[in-house]
Amino acid sequence: MPTTDADGPAPGLSHRRPIAVTWGDCDAAGVVFYPRYYAWFDASTHAMLDAAGLSHHRLKAEFGALGTPLVRAEADFRASATFGDTLTAECRVAAIGRRSFTVEHRLSLGGRVVVEGREVRVWAEPGPADGPPMIVRPLPDAIRRALTG
Amino acid sequence: MPTTDADGPAPGLSHRRPIAVTWGDCDAAGVVFYPRYYAWFDASTHAMLDAAGLSHHRLKAEFGALGTPLVRAEADFRASATFGDTLTAECRVAAIGRRSFTVEHRLSLGGRVVVEGREVRVWAEPGPADGPPMIVRPLPDAIRRALTG
Amino acid sequence: MPTTDADGPAPGLSHRRPIAVTWGDCDAAGVVFYPRYYAWFDASTHAMLDAAGLSHHRLKAEFGALGTPLVRAEADFRASATFGDTLTAECRVAAIGRRSFTVEHRLSLGGRVVVEGREVRVWAEPGPADGPPMIVRPLPDAIRRALTG
Amino acid sequence: MPTTDADGPAPGLSHRRPIAVTWGDCDAAGVVFYPRYYAWFDASTHAMLDAAGLSHHRLKAEFGALGTPLVRAEADFRASATFGDTLTAECRVAAIGRRSFTVEHRLSLGGRVVVEGREVRVWAEPGPADGPPMIVRPLPDAIRRALTG
Repeated sequence: MPTTDADGPAPGLSHRRPIAVTWGDCDAAGVVFYPRYYAWFDASTHAMLDAAGLSHHRLKAEFGALGTPLVRAEADFRASATFGDTLTAECRVAAIGRRSFTVEHRLSLGGRVVVEGREVRVWAEPGPADGPPMIVRPLPDAIRRALTG
Repeated sequence: MPTTDADGPAPGLSHRRPIAVTWGDCDAAGVVFYPRYYAWFDASTHAMLDAAGLSHHRLKAEFGALGTPLVRAEADFRASATFGDTLTAECRVAAIGRRSFTVEHRLSLGGRVVVEGREVRVWAEPGPADGPPMIVRPLPDAIRRALTG
Repeated sequence: MPTTDADGPAPGLSHRRPIAVTWGDCDAAGVVFYPRYYAWFDASTHAMLDAAGLSHHRLKAEFGALGTPLVRAEADFRASATFGDTLTAECRVAAIGRRSFTVEHRLSLGGRVVVEGREVRVWAEPGPADGPPMIVRPLPDAIRRALTG
Repeated sequence: MPTTDADGPAPGLSHRRPIAVTWGDCDAAGVVFYPRYYAWFDASTHAMLDAAGLSHHRLKAEFGALGTPLVRAEADFRASATFGDTLTAECRVAAIGRRSFTVEHRLSLGGRVVVEGREVRVWAEPGPADGPPMIVRPLPDAIRRALTG
């Protein structure tokens, strides 16, 4: 039988970490102020890349990257969380394109999904001397392999 | 008589305000840290509601609302912005459902779009004494009319 | 026998935790944006109180507190920190007054002090029906004892 | 000859701006989360410097500065503020040393002081190739004059 893709997602880099929700993460309704979830997405992606040896410092020093800026982010908020809660943050590389990669995020509390979302990031390098400061470039092969996990 | 709707989106509440990008809004790449855009979306929505007489204080005191929490938010990041930039933040109510409403956001810099996004918000009231602290309820008619602009 | 206090600070509640500095904590100079240190002070104080059984939920439900708002905060920034660093955050209750208590904070990196500071917090309860929403009141004895450690 | 300083503070650069307190600035007690006040101090200082022609971009390009990092910050919180409030933020250069300068901040609401504080900042330049990335250096004369107002 052909394609094996049908059975599920291809393996990709993944990461899991706890997040302790603090007083300062919450708004006047006593629940997490929603932009904080995106800050946690960002921190989870960086933690995943760090754990795979792809720290920002190395991406910059070894691969000449300015970073992996976002071109899109989205989230569905399914339940609320409050200070004192400890969320489980899971993320994984869900797609790898020529110049971009997608990271899927899920934050849960005691097995119940609180937020699901995704980030689409690109590979950015410094632009030419007479051009824009940042240009999007193809992902280096070594990075592509590392993201595959 | 033809409807006038066909030519474009139905009129809805809208708002425009400047945002001065500060040093603290930017990350180590020198551009706005992306969760900040969502904080600005949130602040723009509140400013739009305030300007229409729908302050959180009034929603709570007069309509018994806990607030208008998010069920979904998304954004496309089309260009970067940095400290010293003054963005123009525009938002408008793009759809009104039975229990939810959608706010579209656009932030631009000198006519160039920096970020476009949308928030889907619901109408939340306190839950019953023996139930969850917050339940989603239909939008009151007065609110629905006010959101229409 | 005389008191032994003269030799050093009286014992007080204390706490220690790691803080992973993230990309989003840093500003365009690539170092921690200084207000973040105060957010970590606040989170450390809450973590210390939580660990001693003094969660905000309990302070509210059992003691009728609105919280322990700040009346003063200060910090000396002795070195910089950046994303990828893991700081050690230590705090302890350094003084207990009739209505206030002081928490001293120290964040260090590999034994080197990065930031030292202190918060002075008061005990706040809801005000009378015809008065201000929040009033400062004496610390309950049970809280005073718990803060002593 | 007596100095004229005795009558009051020497003239220094100053700035005033409004701050609209947003929903996201507030914590679960419904009042401003205190680290936000420091973010506003920082933004006020940058706005004051920008208005005097001392933008970060110019400090970097023309004077080789990395920035004006904090060595100390402190604040006294005298009253609370909440979303919907518009604060008046005033700041002024209160002292100029050889390598540092002090900015005093006052945020008020309808004439009532909400927060008073101060920042002590230093002049930082890139370190030598084989040394630390940042070193503190004397304030250039042109900067010193500009800070005098």
